[in-house]
Amino acid sequence: MTRGRTATSTGGEPAHSGVVILRRVPDSFHMTPDEFRRHGHAVVDWVADYMERVGELPVLAQVEPGEIRARMPDAAPEEPEPFEALIDDLDEVVLPGITHWQSPGWFAYFPANASGPSILGELVAAGLGAQGMLWATSPALTEIENQVLDWLVDLLGLPQAWKTAVGPGGGVIQMSASDSTHVVHVVARENAVARGASTDDLVAYGSSQAHSSVERGARIAGFRHVRLLEVDAAHALRPDSLQVAVTDDLAGGRVPTIVTSAIGTTATGAVDPVAQISAISREHGLWHHVDAAWAGAAMCCAEHRRHQAGTEHADSYTFNPHKWLFTNFDCNVLWVADRAPLITTLSTQPPYLRNAASESGAVIDYRDWHVPLGRRFRALKLWWVLRSYGARGLRHHIREHIALAQEIGRRVDEHPALERIAPVSFALVCFRHVAGDAETDALAAAINATATVYVTASAIEDVRFIRVSVGQTHTTRADVERLWSAIADGVGSAG
Amino acid sequence: MTRGRTATSTGGEPAHSGVVILRRVPDSFHMTPDEFRRHGHAVVDWVADYMERVGELPVLAQVEPGEIRARMPDAAPEEPEPFEALIDDLDEVVLPGITHWQSPGWFAYFPANASGPSILGELVAAGLGAQGMLWATSPALTEIENQVLDWLVDLLGLPQAWKTAVGPGGGVIQMSASDSTHVVHVVARENAVARGASTDDLVAYGSSQAHSSVERGARIAGFRHVRLLEVDAAHALRPDSLQVAVTDDLAGGRVPTIVTSAIGTTATGAVDPVAQISAISREHGLWHHVDAAWAGAAMCCAEHRRHQAGTEHADSYTFNPHKWLFTNFDCNVLWVADRAPLITTLSTQPPYLRNAASESGAVIDYRDWHVPLGRRFRALKLWWVLRSYGARGLRHHIREHIALAQEIGRRVDEHPALERIAPVSFALVCFRHVAGDAETDALAAAINATATVYVTASAIEDVRFIRVSVGQTHTTRADVERLWSAIADGVGSAG
Repeated sequence: MTRGRTATSTGGEPAHSGVVILRRVPDSFHMTPDEFRRHGHAVVDWVADYMERVGELPVLAQVEPGEIRARMPDAAPEEPEPFEALIDDLDEVVLPGITHWQSPGWFAYFPANASGPSILGELVAAGLGAQGMLWATSPALTEIENQVLDWLVDLLGLPQAWKTAVGPGGGVIQMSASDSTHVVHVVARENAVARGASTDDLVAYGSSQAHSSVERGARIAGFRHVRLLEVDAAHALRPDSLQVAVTDDLAGGRVPTIVTSAIGTTATGAVDPVAQISAISREHGLWHHVDAAWAGAAMCCAEHRRHQAGTEHADSYTFNPHKWLFTNFDCNVLWVADRAPLITTLSTQPPYLRNAASESGAVIDYRDWHVPLGRRFRALKLWWVLRSYGARGLRHHIREHIALAQEIGRRVDEHPALERIAPVSFALVCFRHVAGDAETDALAAAINATATVYVTASAIEDVRFIRVSVGQTHTTRADVERLWSAIADGVGSAG
Repeated sequence: MTRGRTATSTGGEPAHSGVVILRRVPDSFHMTPDEFRRHGHAVVDWVADYMERVGELPVLAQVEPGEIRARMPDAAPEEPEPFEALIDDLDEVVLPGITHWQSPGWFAYFPANASGPSILGELVAAGLGAQGMLWATSPALTEIENQVLDWLVDLLGLPQAWKTAVGPGGGVIQMSASDSTHVVHVVARENAVARGASTDDLVAYGSSQAHSSVERGARIAGFRHVRLLEVDAAHALRPDSLQVAVTDDLAGGRVPTIVTSAIGTTATGAVDPVAQISAISREHGLWHHVDAAWAGAAMCCAEHRRHQAGTEHADSYTFNPHKWLFTNFDCNVLWVADRAPLITTLSTQPPYLRNAASESGAVIDYRDWHVPLGRRFRALKLWWVLRSYGARGLRHHIREHIALAQEIGRRVDEHPALERIAPVSFALVCFRHVAGDAETDALAAAINATATVYVTASAIEDVRFIRVSVGQTHTTRADVERLWSAIADGVGSAG
């Protein structure tokens, strides 16, 4: 389709003039399909090699601030560079600055997993380069997303009414749980304002252990009152503290608007009492949003679904396949129990986007379901993951990670210098050094200094602890043994 | 690292019990690195083949609502499917539902271009699967983004103070211009509220020709007053209408807060008088946001920079490399003249994200620059595009597209049945059938019915017109000749 670039040009480029003299300009600077085939194979091989060696690299990048930038020139090149130079710089410039989230020694934060079928799905989506803002701009993007998210409703044991094929609810892929949580705060705000409330009076609720995206999403949506409520000994939201706060706010002339409950908090994996929060929400007309960003993946396994009892009365639910379901970032799912208020809040109809399909009402236009207008074909990689693993494969690996976490929990319990600060939740183990905060931080530092595994040092209610999150795609028992050696050795040096 | 899956399992899965009996379960359902290598080459070949044949496919998908969904099963598969079946479905299920934004016959909307180096950059980013929410979570993601966006400051002729290496401004990659525009409305809102204003009193301004993301971003940010102001004969915002509106709002006790000016409106490519709007903004303390989502790419060429005169006094500027700069969606850039209010508005400090680098103040943590927390390595594909094309390659193709648009404009002017409704702006040509709206719509339908090219039918001030946007990566003179034949033939049948 295009001719290959030639490197012989001496085109002139005056900096500040409208007169441009181009001499011997090549016809095209584009990569041809044949070049793409050749370079693409080389890049696939580089990624496959990376998969093979990532376990041998130090998990945490070992660079100082400014070190990566210093390896780059100060300006974009004037002339095209050969593609081989770009690939070389993956090793020279990029890798030293990568913290390896795809290392099987990754036990930090939560996982942000990639997998073969997902990476290749992302490649095809980029190659197609189609836009899914409207059904009409590429029907496959919308319909495959519709269908795959309906599949997930069954996989996770969620309400049938959340399927777009059933309704009135439906699911949509967003970039992150922060985006989904922000959007439902906007919708809840608009519902309240439509009933006559002032934005300045609206109140949003979550627990003191809610993810930062809850307070942040509420503040970005303009909430002036955000209540982070008391938790019980298991770090779960206390329904009575919600009830009291709502009553106080009503008495103070404020407008209780939305509450978020968590299935699996970030700090310790605590599970809020979803059913009780749903009941309070219905009593007072609050929007009830459920944040299962990480633990939602475990709902593939029927034995964990008791933790989401009551979800059938929630107004929205968010879950990240890009955490623990082997689908590379970004791939967050938001389900709403009723899509009408979402669309009412976010819909616009500029003339350049009008089309017969939209006006027929027979299709979903996902631009009305989130803040961005454009959207890429993220459903493709999720579709490929579900098909490549099968439901059985997903359950197998989720259960394996949970069993490994339980094993770590048992060893912590048996170790005289260690104590759990919370029950093992799904695949998250939280513990500390019994000697105190300094020793706990020293232990975390010693574990991470091995560079073969990586854990998070955190704090809850001013108590320092170590978070071990099992769930990287390729983590196996051998990696957990490696982690345990680092813990056991570290206890010796820290204690 | 993992063993290949075996297909002989007969694992049992009781639906609602905690007791799970797994018999002869394989060790892993993951794709191995060797399998990735093999399947990856096949996928690269599929994409290369797609590049070769996309020009032969009907540009607009030829399916009815529900047709793609009907080709998919009702549930996720229980057992893994072979990867070959996934690739086969690209042709069987996906392609019939794709509207081909990568066709050289694409003249609709604005382009959303992919290119070889960009697609392969996306592949590497997915393979690395690293997170850039904090500098510490993968320093290379942040520092390469810092550096590449600083390169772009010079490439587009923007103020030096917008470089992160200079400050106090800086650039960040977001998903879309809608996200960037929304975020600056949130920041402007918080600035006003911090000065004592009520959210309900804030006013946002743009022209009647502003992109829908301006009104939408303001409404999502909670603005109750959005003024879409009068334009002049060239569809550009009239500074006097802004001055009058601000004066009226102040007299009415409202708080003028933010104005967006467009360099290249979506409807006709109109350019608002940025310098005059900056002057009014400074006089009244408004945040001035510049939306150059599409036309920003043309600023690579010095001869077009007169259109952004006055930008040096703006507070923020957004531009989409994912439109016309050969970088696949998503890749939007937001620059702010001062990063402090952005970070103040969006920063959170949960304990699980604390780290020494952040607390040193020596690094940028991009989670504080946008709504999402997680972020993938989008700078990689942009870096590869800039290096693979070189500045000269980018200018060459941008200029070629603009020259082709000028050529179409000249032919329209010479055609007795056609008239332009606006000057040719950058690479956008807007025209109508002189006989009226029905004939214009019929002409657009006739052009699109060829299925070899695709244009947008739109309206401005109730007058129907046809938008021809030249700029798809691979569009050449031959494609423009094909378009012109479709126009000329269509005029015959429509007129």
